[in-house]
Amino acid sequence: MSSNTQPKRVGTIGLSGPGSWASRAHIVPLKASPHYTITALQNRTKESANAAATCFDLGPLNVYDDPKSLAQDPNVDIVAVSVKVPHHYEAVKPAIEAGKDVFVEWPLARNLAEAKELAALAKAKGIRTMVGLQGRKMPAAVRAKALIDAGKIGTILGTHMYAHGAIWGAACPENLTYGLPVENGANQVTIAFGHLIDTLCWVVGEVESFSATLANNRPQIPIVTENTYEPTGQILPKTAHDYVSITGKLVCGGVVDATCSGGLSRAGKSLFWEIEGTKGTLILEGGPIGSAVQMFPPTLRLYVDGDAEGEEIELEKVEGAAKGDYSYATGKAWAAWAAEDVGEGYPVVTFEDAVVRHRMIDAVYRSAETGARVTYL
Amino acid sequence: MSSNTQPKRVGTIGLSGPGSWASRAHIVPLKASPHYTITALQNRTKESANAAATCFDLGPLNVYDDPKSLAQDPNVDIVAVSVKVPHHYEAVKPAIEAGKDVFVEWPLARNLAEAKELAALAKAKGIRTMVGLQGRKMPAAVRAKALIDAGKIGTILGTHMYAHGAIWGAACPENLTYGLPVENGANQVTIAFGHLIDTLCWVVGEVESFSATLANNRPQIPIVTENTYEPTGQILPKTAHDYVSITGKLVCGGVVDATCSGGLSRAGKSLFWEIEGTKGTLILEGGPIGSAVQMFPPTLRLYVDGDAEGEEIELEKVEGAAKGDYSYATGKAWAAWAAEDVGEGYPVVTFEDAVVRHRMIDAVYRSAETGARVTYL
Repeated sequence: MSSNTQPKRVGTIGLSGPGSWASRAHIVPLKASPHYTITALQNRTKESANAAATCFDLGPLNVYDDPKSLAQDPNVDIVAVSVKVPHHYEAVKPAIEAGKDVFVEWPLARNLAEAKELAALAKAKGIRTMVGLQGRKMPAAVRAKALIDAGKIGTILGTHMYAHGAIWGAACPENLTYGLPVENGANQVTIAFGHLIDTLCWVVGEVESFSATLANNRPQIPIVTENTYEPTGQILPKTAHDYVSITGKLVCGGVVDATCSGGLSRAGKSLFWEIEGTKGTLILEGGPIGSAVQMFPPTLRLYVDGDAEGEEIELEKVEGAAKGDYSYATGKAWAAWAAEDVGEGYPVVTFEDAVVRHRMIDAVYRSAETGARVTYL
Repeated sequence: MSSNTQPKRVGTIGLSGPGSWASRAHIVPLKASPHYTITALQNRTKESANAAATCFDLGPLNVYDDPKSLAQDPNVDIVAVSVKVPHHYEAVKPAIEAGKDVFVEWPLARNLAEAKELAALAKAKGIRTMVGLQGRKMPAAVRAKALIDAGKIGTILGTHMYAHGAIWGAACPENLTYGLPVENGANQVTIAFGHLIDTLCWVVGEVESFSATLANNRPQIPIVTENTYEPTGQILPKTAHDYVSITGKLVCGGVVDATCSGGLSRAGKSLFWEIEGTKGTLILEGGPIGSAVQMFPPTLRLYVDGDAEGEEIELEKVEGAAKGDYSYATGKAWAAWAAEDVGEGYPVVTFEDAVVRHRMIDAVYRSAETGARVTYL
């Protein structure tokens, strides 16, 4: 094994107990991959970091209670950030400054300004970056894009996406209250819609211009417990929006509309996404528990002229989601980064890609506020 | 029977042979109703009018070859116009001027200016008017509105409509080529989307403001035969749009998005319309052959919190549509007009209502052109 293919030493930020995103999405693929080894861990306290290391059987590693110390650990090549969105900036910046490669969950940061600053800094430092826009790794999206690129549906006439955000509905779990102030950038628009629209833009190409509508249907929201959704009796103000809808034109020329409503669909229709072309139509549908395309695998059907029944496209199986293991797409993302190391050119979602999506989200807010059709490219 | 309840004498304009809209939608209810009797008929030629009278067994009646003569027939109380949209204005105006009540199919006219002129003239003359926006008469729409008005779904958070226009797809039948120039006002936007959005606005209330996207995906369109859709070899220019999408806010506060793509859905998903409230969700779905809510009856399901299966709402049966008989909703419209006679206050769609919808369609064009969010109320 050449030095280039030595396992990369990963320092994780925000791996707390079972149930945390990092534990559900990152630990399994990182531990299983020959390309990575976890060498350091930072939580709010060293005790918590040690507890997580023990809990996930990570072996001996360095523990820290602040991002700067972890960033300066000479035994860390990559810093992997999986903390609440408002803390992304403060977790990522020291890592970049220390010249470490950085993975960070989507959204890259609270807002476009922070995201641009981090991307510019990363570029100046020449580090490698990756962002957790993992919808692009889901088999239905990968296959849909391949079918379109192969000309199976002809020219795209339009694409229509209708989804529910699963969370951000009638009540807010205690562990997500940090998303209630819109300025924290962790809500239905940035996360639920963000992942969906990123996947859409990856599959059919970017949106040339669009108009947006936003609503905050529940400005006072009841708080429920994290796992059992029992009412706590608390009601908190919410400024983040829970309903987003856009209409516009794709760069490729077709029409795009996408709508994402907060909470679960009462009718079990969490995600319906149609891509209509001159020769065929693709339909991606999500399961009843959520539209989160980065976590739950949609199905994919292809309809071509003359075949009203359509064809269920056979997809690589995504295991685990039903049991709360969301590591499939994240594992693919880590694998893509490793493949890039050996020059395989697998698509990796970088900070620069994330800035494009942040620009789009920013444009959603601008359009909803001003009523103007907006561009973001 | 008092003089008030004597059957109204109806003069029809545009009742041509079997297959014409008038023959599929108007003849059956007009002949069956005790409130109406057909006393005159105008076609492009008297021969054609006589032939139609014989074909539909209308008994002896006066025949005309121009709208002005029919309008002046003293044996006509109501003029019923069912001709191609570009001819509505010239058919309706003489009837109003002659003081006759007027029924006319939707769209009322080619554009907002014509519609406003006709509505103002009708108001000045004090005549009664009715417009064929019959989606409002379909059981699914009537019941959905009643359920909403009864508070079954709580406050409306948003409504989402996705439909295909059935026609105005990849080819244009010979008998519809008059809709190809956008200025004729008889296309995917005015007719397919027009009927759908009118039904939406009747059920959930008007749209306060919205942004629109339009596309003319097929500016050169192959022509096919009327009934068998065989290619004629002709290709004609098309300036009318075949894809429309809006996003905005309802007057009641919820978000609205509605998209209508030309042609049939390859996947048989002609109409999906969800109305999401704080307490429940209504879903209206159309059959595979078309979203035209004024012709084909949608189903209606109600989902309330805690009942994931939902409830299929039992609806009055709409017979005939599968065999090309579209008279159900039109019959209800004529019955509503008759009920108004006896003070029952059944909702009748008037020229003034139609002008509201024309304003909305006009706003669709303005928004699509300028990129601005628009209002129309």
